Amino acid sequence: MAVGDVTMPQMHVVKGVKIGSAEAYVRYQNRRDLVIFELAEGSHVAGVFTQNAFCAAPVHVCKAHLQVTNPRYLVINTGNANAGTGKVGLANAEATCIKLAELTNISQNEILPFSTGVIGEQLPIERLTAGLQPALDSLKEDAWLDAATGIMTTDTLPKGASEQFEIDGITYTMTGISKGAGMIRPNMATMLSYVATDAPISRELVQLLLKETVNVSFNRITVDGDTSTNDSCILIATGQAGGIEISSIDDSRYAVILDVLTRVMKRLAQLIIRDGEGATKFITITVEGGLNTQECCDIAYSIAHSPLVKTAIFASDPNWGRILAAIGYAGVKNLDVEKIQVWLDDVQICKDGGAAADYTEEAGARVMSQAEMLIRVNLGRGDAKDTVYTCDLSYDYVKINADYRS
Amino acid sequence: MAVGDVTMPQMHVVKGVKIGSAEAYVRYQNRRDLVIFELAEGSHVAGVFTQNAFCAAPVHVCKAHLQVTNPRYLVINTGNANAGTGKVGLANAEATCIKLAELTNISQNEILPFSTGVIGEQLPIERLTAGLQPALDSLKEDAWLDAATGIMTTDTLPKGASEQFEIDGITYTMTGISKGAGMIRPNMATMLSYVATDAPISRELVQLLLKETVNVSFNRITVDGDTSTNDSCILIATGQAGGIEISSIDDSRYAVILDVLTRVMKRLAQLIIRDGEGATKFITITVEGGLNTQECCDIAYSIAHSPLVKTAIFASDPNWGRILAAIGYAGVKNLDVEKIQVWLDDVQICKDGGAAADYTEEAGARVMSQAEMLIRVNLGRGDAKDTVYTCDLSYDYVKINADYRS
Repeated sequence: MAVGDVTMPQMHVVKGVKIGSAEAYVRYQNRRDLVIFELAEGSHVAGVFTQNAFCAAPVHVCKAHLQVTNPRYLVINTGNANAGTGKVGLANAEATCIKLAELTNISQNEILPFSTGVIGEQLPIERLTAGLQPALDSLKEDAWLDAATGIMTTDTLPKGASEQFEIDGITYTMTGISKGAGMIRPNMATMLSYVATDAPISRELVQLLLKETVNVSFNRITVDGDTSTNDSCILIATGQAGGIEISSIDDSRYAVILDVLTRVMKRLAQLIIRDGEGATKFITITVEGGLNTQECCDIAYSIAHSPLVKTAIFASDPNWGRILAAIGYAGVKNLDVEKIQVWLDDVQICKDGGAAADYTEEAGARVMSQAEMLIRVNLGRGDAKDTVYTCDLSYDYVKINADYRS
Repeated sequence: MAVGDVTMPQMHVVKGVKIGSAEAYVRYQNRRDLVIFELAEGSHVAGVFTQNAFCAAPVHVCKAHLQVTNPRYLVINTGNANAGTGKVGLANAEATCIKLAELTNISQNEILPFSTGVIGEQLPIERLTAGLQPALDSLKEDAWLDAATGIMTTDTLPKGASEQFEIDGITYTMTGISKGAGMIRPNMATMLSYVATDAPISRELVQLLLKETVNVSFNRITVDGDTSTNDSCILIATGQAGGIEISSIDDSRYAVILDVLTRVMKRLAQLIIRDGEGATKFITITVEGGLNTQECCDIAYSIAHSPLVKTAIFASDPNWGRILAAIGYAGVKNLDVEKIQVWLDDVQICKDGGAAADYTEEAGARVMSQAEMLIRVNLGRGDAKDTVYTCDLSYDYVKINADYRS
């Protein structure tokens, strides 16, 4: 059961983006597990990828292709991650591109492949490539929901965000999807996410926009601290809605687009937490008063990854000593615990290194029983601030990850 | 249910150590929750303590007292950690020492206080100090089992190790106890552990022996990655069995004692994992072929802390891709995944960045279904090696930590 508002919005079409899907039987029967994006000529594409040393074969191929071309197609399979698969895995990722290049009469370098699913098994490459033509045959603009559904693994629902905005009399669209529920602690990237706009943006600025917004969205979420082998986040600007290309951050339109994209990316990232494996609570952790962003993040992640904090929140138990312990072992040097203050929403639980004088167990329990809560920590030694999003640790997390192979 | 052999051995008495206990009703009724150790005059005592910034009040007091005296008494309560308790907590830890000093007619500096239990609540100091005299009244040599039982919190069983050894015709004893089951990732120390020998060892060498053996025992275990606020490990040498004091590491007796102590400390540390909250499996993780110890430990802990690896082991599912992912996100720079090899016991699962050619799911499942297993990783780039011990993540871990406040 996902937490809070997870409704799929109206997914506005993006001019210059068509989506097709097919059943390729990668792992399961009777589901569309193969998705293709077709991008208009002249689209600018940027990507950020996992920092996991065991990064998946398709991640290697994506990085190489992005160096040399403006991609025209993305091809995504679910059910198999093609990671930990060695040279055979790399050959399979390339074979997927070669086959799709033949069918579409372009260079294989203009294709970006993606995989998600079980790590350490070889792709069923024949079934996968056999699905390419049916997926191409189904290409259409209005298929973002199909794409969001097609890339799901242990997700319980498709995840999307979509906005329209107007600049200089032109209506632009920003639409994106994401997937992921477990093995979630993106590092410089995310699970799979694809966001596209029909605004005209230079290649350099597409890369910059992606980097800036990933750092406040996908790089600030964690379910279980496990950084995936396949995290990939792609931003596409087709330019098909018209207007002169935006090529400077001083262009006033840049700020508008950054604002919309930030909202879309945060929504897509937070949807992954709301649908986190076994999640019953959505938790925002803000650490302020730090010397720098790094120490704020270190402490926020220390809290977010503590199994003891996460199980206490699952139990609605205001066992706040566990939060203090997680702050204390985050590895931040020379913390003065006497200056640290901690709140659960508006309830102050910790002051001067101990319980706040007016804290009551009842007030703490009230916040902990909510489906959504803010844990706010003030370190009392600087102006830096950062925020991380996470969920609780429930029986169902263990059940999902112990009962079947995801 | 603890994993494997967790039997309490015959706990040989240590000459010069007497133990008393009492019911002080710190948190629960009808249990001996207060333990006192009385050490013979001239005993040498060393301690290592948690690195958690929110370290408990008694840890502050212990460190201060160890600077200035050779302690004569240790006093330990369970049920309340006296951590996150500010100035009141510090005063309570000191009040415990003052009261015990009055009753025993020594200086309060000669007393080391310890607490374990819930974080963030004040000690019931009157009930606690009222228990001191009854505990003193019960002092006797043969009470190590009482002590091991008296310091338990969520432990399901008392934990002890004891050996006798002979040097130069003198029989010496090394006996120790430990406690801990959750909030276990000791950092330079452990949960509570007390080891005593009646061998004559200089104060400097007691400290050195403790440091050396903690680094291969309590500093190499993790249940949930949560470093406690109260970790303390104490080594006592009373010298009461006779012989000339050992004051140089070149003394041949030093090596004998180091060997015995290493076994006792490893056993006490591993018992904590075997009794880890909800544990159904005991897992040894050895990383070899590293450039240095740090990177071997980083990768071993990355595997040991991965909720996905831990739930897969709980399920006896040889989902080894999760092990590769955890190796990959450990943060070790410039790993060449093509050189990495991974085994489950004698079954090679990974070679050259992918599945080993002769690996079969059946062979992997056979090892994963065992109650004890070795995950061995070879990084193929150096001679360093290290080993970490952990357990799996089960429904019961969530149940224990969500159902009641520990």
